[in-house]
Amino acid sequence: MIIVIKKHTDKDRVDALLKKLNGMGVNAVITQGESFDTLNVIGDTTKIDEQSFKAYDFVESVKRISAPFKLASDKTQKVIKVGNVNFGKDFVFIAGPCAVESEKQIVELAQDLKNAGANILRGGAFKPRTSPYSFQGLYDEGIKLLLKAKQQTGLPIISEIMGVSQLDLFCDVDIVQIGARNMQNFELIKNVATLNKPVMLKRGLANTVTEWLLSAEYLLSNGASDVILCERGIRTFETTTRATLDLTSVPYLKDTTNLPVIIDPSHAVGVSKFIKPLALAGASVGADGLMIEVHNDPENALSDGAQAVTSAQFKDIVDNVKQLLNAIK
Amino acid sequence: MIIVIKKHTDKDRVDALLKKLNGMGVNAVITQGESFDTLNVIGDTTKIDEQSFKAYDFVESVKRISAPFKLASDKTQKVIKVGNVNFGKDFVFIAGPCAVESEKQIVELAQDLKNAGANILRGGAFKPRTSPYSFQGLYDEGIKLLLKAKQQTGLPIISEIMGVSQLDLFCDVDIVQIGARNMQNFELIKNVATLNKPVMLKRGLANTVTEWLLSAEYLLSNGASDVILCERGIRTFETTTRATLDLTSVPYLKDTTNLPVIIDPSHAVGVSKFIKPLALAGASVGADGLMIEVHNDPENALSDGAQAVTSAQFKDIVDNVKQLLNAIK
Amino acid sequence: MIIVIKKHTDKDRVDALLKKLNGMGVNAVITQGESFDTLNVIGDTTKIDEQSFKAYDFVESVKRISAPFKLASDKTQKVIKVGNVNFGKDFVFIAGPCAVESEKQIVELAQDLKNAGANILRGGAFKPRTSPYSFQGLYDEGIKLLLKAKQQTGLPIISEIMGVSQLDLFCDVDIVQIGARNMQNFELIKNVATLNKPVMLKRGLANTVTEWLLSAEYLLSNGASDVILCERGIRTFETTTRATLDLTSVPYLKDTTNLPVIIDPSHAVGVSKFIKPLALAGASVGADGLMIEVHNDPENALSDGAQAVTSAQFKDIVDNVKQLLNAIK
Amino acid sequence: MIIVIKKHTDKDRVDALLKKLNGMGVNAVITQGESFDTLNVIGDTTKIDEQSFKAYDFVESVKRISAPFKLASDKTQKVIKVGNVNFGKDFVFIAGPCAVESEKQIVELAQDLKNAGANILRGGAFKPRTSPYSFQGLYDEGIKLLLKAKQQTGLPIISEIMGVSQLDLFCDVDIVQIGARNMQNFELIKNVATLNKPVMLKRGLANTVTEWLLSAEYLLSNGASDVILCERGIRTFETTTRATLDLTSVPYLKDTTNLPVIIDPSHAVGVSKFIKPLALAGASVGADGLMIEVHNDPENALSDGAQAVTSAQFKDIVDNVKQLLNAIK
Repeated sequence: MIIVIKKHTDKDRVDALLKKLNGMGVNAVITQGESFDTLNVIGDTTKIDEQSFKAYDFVESVKRISAPFKLASDKTQKVIKVGNVNFGKDFVFIAGPCAVESEKQIVELAQDLKNAGANILRGGAFKPRTSPYSFQGLYDEGIKLLLKAKQQTGLPIISEIMGVSQLDLFCDVDIVQIGARNMQNFELIKNVATLNKPVMLKRGLANTVTEWLLSAEYLLSNGASDVILCERGIRTFETTTRATLDLTSVPYLKDTTNLPVIIDPSHAVGVSKFIKPLALAGASVGADGLMIEVHNDPENALSDGAQAVTSAQFKDIVDNVKQLLNAIK
Repeated sequence: MIIVIKKHTDKDRVDALLKKLNGMGVNAVITQGESFDTLNVIGDTTKIDEQSFKAYDFVESVKRISAPFKLASDKTQKVIKVGNVNFGKDFVFIAGPCAVESEKQIVELAQDLKNAGANILRGGAFKPRTSPYSFQGLYDEGIKLLLKAKQQTGLPIISEIMGVSQLDLFCDVDIVQIGARNMQNFELIKNVATLNKPVMLKRGLANTVTEWLLSAEYLLSNGASDVILCERGIRTFETTTRATLDLTSVPYLKDTTNLPVIIDPSHAVGVSKFIKPLALAGASVGADGLMIEVHNDPENALSDGAQAVTSAQFKDIVDNVKQLLNAIK
Repeated sequence: MIIVIKKHTDKDRVDALLKKLNGMGVNAVITQGESFDTLNVIGDTTKIDEQSFKAYDFVESVKRISAPFKLASDKTQKVIKVGNVNFGKDFVFIAGPCAVESEKQIVELAQDLKNAGANILRGGAFKPRTSPYSFQGLYDEGIKLLLKAKQQTGLPIISEIMGVSQLDLFCDVDIVQIGARNMQNFELIKNVATLNKPVMLKRGLANTVTEWLLSAEYLLSNGASDVILCERGIRTFETTTRATLDLTSVPYLKDTTNLPVIIDPSHAVGVSKFIKPLALAGASVGADGLMIEVHNDPENALSDGAQAVTSAQFKDIVDNVKQLLNAIK
Repeated sequence: MIIVIKKHTDKDRVDALLKKLNGMGVNAVITQGESFDTLNVIGDTTKIDEQSFKAYDFVESVKRISAPFKLASDKTQKVIKVGNVNFGKDFVFIAGPCAVESEKQIVELAQDLKNAGANILRGGAFKPRTSPYSFQGLYDEGIKLLLKAKQQTGLPIISEIMGVSQLDLFCDVDIVQIGARNMQNFELIKNVATLNKPVMLKRGLANTVTEWLLSAEYLLSNGASDVILCERGIRTFETTTRATLDLTSVPYLKDTTNLPVIIDPSHAVGVSKFIKPLALAGASVGADGLMIEVHNDPENALSDGAQAVTSAQFKDIVDNVKQLLNAIK
């Protein structure tokens, strides 16, 4: 951490700051510059809030040198086993409807998806919808139906949790998803961390990669050991597509952390016909898997039908992604 | 709502869509255009999810005509009485520290703020911090200390709630705040709505005004009648300041809704010396009040000291804002 | 085009608007809605500025139905022949340094790139640099050196034009590039359009796809027939990487226009080690080619060395992209 | 400037970098940190491109300490006299139509504006329009008509220049405007700088304050001494209003530079009824003046009628702003 201070600052004031730094377990070396002096802080600064030093009027700016997330930047190879697949080693296909709607819908679809090459079944029981008047999911019943589909197909399941009161319902869910809108719902994150289960953490629509990894750090430092990241598009000025899929972040993530990264092209483009090219792009940029929304009957889906592909289209995506991965491995 | 459909679409398919619309309680009039035909949907479309129609491959696009929030766009004059002030009628000054730190801190500061002209005391007990290693607040104890300050000064209090498990603690808090990161935490919003208390809903960092009003609609349609909006800056490409205060939204809000709008310049600029000009701008743009972070000793604040002004600086802001309002009323 | 008007608007005022529309060569059909009435404008609205109707106080909003660019949305197959490659048919590799620095640098590098599989040589002679103190290119001399490299290798060349006074210098340049910062420099665009040469139009950092296609429309309507689009990353709140490569836009462009789309991963990520994965993603998302910055000695490059790969790294990218394309074609 | 380097970097490589730095006229002090070492660069780094060091693979990151613009960060009081007003001392009202349309229009309007309190007349002769089919201005004729209005009213004039070929036409124009889309058209900027006239530099829609000041630095270092900044809204995810007026930047600018800052609320909000509150906000945040679009007949304006106020509305704004400034001075 570098604390930039104004020239000719009263020595007593700088000494007070140095003493404060010592109290935090770090030291600082002063370098005289031409326009400013700098304090190079030496030691573990992970847990120091760099913003706090800006309250001193003689501090011009503060620059962080090392990452503020220690557990999330661990580089040792990470493999997360769920059912028969290993995140971080195998390329994983997660598929299913935006929302669980009925037993027939989810069980039939799960069977189709398994045949098409899906490794894990997704399905929403609790749906965070922008409007209070949109379909909000089947709640508990949705989880039960997902479990039935799991039982009948053997596919592990993933579903989104929206509140602490739902924790008990997720005990047989294989991966607990924290959605984009809850990426900084720290109350929920801390509680989910205690479940001792794999967690998929979606990136918030307007959250930086650093904030995303700090939310992963919340999970890791509160007991979750198996964290999977999911990029689903960020909010930008461009409105032609629903969001802008930030594939640029993937190589950075692979360089910075050992956490598996999944790409969700469905929420990013929002239109089913554009999903295949983005899925291929996600696979070729180095991600560890894909999460794709599939529906038996997109035109009559209770939510997000516009971005749902059919099982047949999903199979075509799986086949093409496998060929692609084979070619560039 | 306008549903744009491709020319030469099979009549049966359009009829199926018209029938679906009828089932939703609305009608549609077809107009033949040069490049596309359009279905003008007639009736109450508030509760219809316009995205759903995009699942039909013959639908080119869907345009919403009337606002998707009915309760939030009510225009009858709204006055929310809290203590001695009336939001929507009086200009309200809310002030206090980012976080409650100790009894001495909050009680002394509350007295100073009252003297300086504050109408309501703010103070965080549960703090949503980006890093798990930052100070997270005093929790229950923080609420107790706020209540002490209320008792001793008579100032009503406002504090942020972060989770459903904290609901009971807020029974004597005058205004419950839903923070920016929880603007789309619908689980929390629905529960807070049942408290039958004034709620301050902060705008999310990357949420549109429409999404913000839809979250207000969640509150209003779930039982809360007194909703106050708070603009605190949005996330843009500009990083010179912490956020970009979107004052452009205020006249739009005053034109669209009857909900009071409060400006929080502290979180937007992030630097104490820039708060006064933004406070003046907030007052002159037509907002109903200001929320400003004040600390007894900013350099040693446990959180966000860089953006905290002192009581004396707060008094100067209050005085200037009052003169300004007097001049332009 | 749909013009939404307020209920109970004076008939005379609506009639005046209808008459104005007639004067523009279009008609309008009125539909009575519940909250608003709508005027469905029938006819060719390409050249009508929809914003102008918002000046009427009884107009609530205006929605455009068909695209505002007619030439750019032509769908007939487009092939642009440059040297031995056909944009729109062959996958094209464009490579070269950010800036031309010397004869030795550009001639040697051109030979290496040709051997590595490049089809076209890029090189900057006029450099738009954010700071006036950064290297601004060799100007005329840079173009001469590029032409020497072209002569010795047979590679067609592309270079960026920054002003109208440079038009004459580009008569032997095979593709004239309009850079991101000049995407809405309409004076330059109109003049370049008269050169009767292929033009590569880079997307502006903060320009929507619609604005980009409107700039292409400027070229097409002013005489240029061969326009190539180049996506190079957009500006978002994320600063971990230099820009956010908007691959989400590519399938939309392929669906909307017949203009070839090239991906420039170098400017988007800004770091050489992350370019290969983004190049692969660009190829798999359906683009027509790649433009990649390569330098003989990145550490001593006069501009943008951080994002330059070596010839050997470029060859590895070419080989992998070819394998990938072969697998998914 | 701080260059962060990886631990255990080969000494020879670091020495090579240090030698390169010496060649640039600066020195560096090495500090050993826990995770990284740092080179504190001592000397004038204004003209050093910090990005260039990222080309070394042992360089982790580079942090700039002092501003990259030297002339623009000069703090000595700056007063720019135009006609009877002094930018930087007097509060200046600039008003006029988006585009000059006819002699009658501009001369009559100019007289009205003068009576209403305008100090300077604006009017576009060359209009940068997103669509090639929109009205592009009267070109040379527009400048002539502006000069007539100047002659008849005595009001100094400001107009936008779009290309180098127009330079001669601007010899009697009092302030030359560089528009938002040309903020990084460095060819134009360098040429305008040689005119020895006051220049108003509008902020680009997606340009940071730092980039804006670097474009001002281009002007200042190429001969222009009188540069006026104009904030007109930035592009964000919010589309309710045309742009987001970044008033948060104003106190930062007043703290960093001596260049006058003008606010253009018209382009930011895009709707005439919302301009007054934003004008008041701009005045109260500390700007040096306002630029407001006014039209004789907004409904029939040839461009941007939706955001034009009438002369009467403009007078009301001037009166209110003066009262406000009087109250808070």
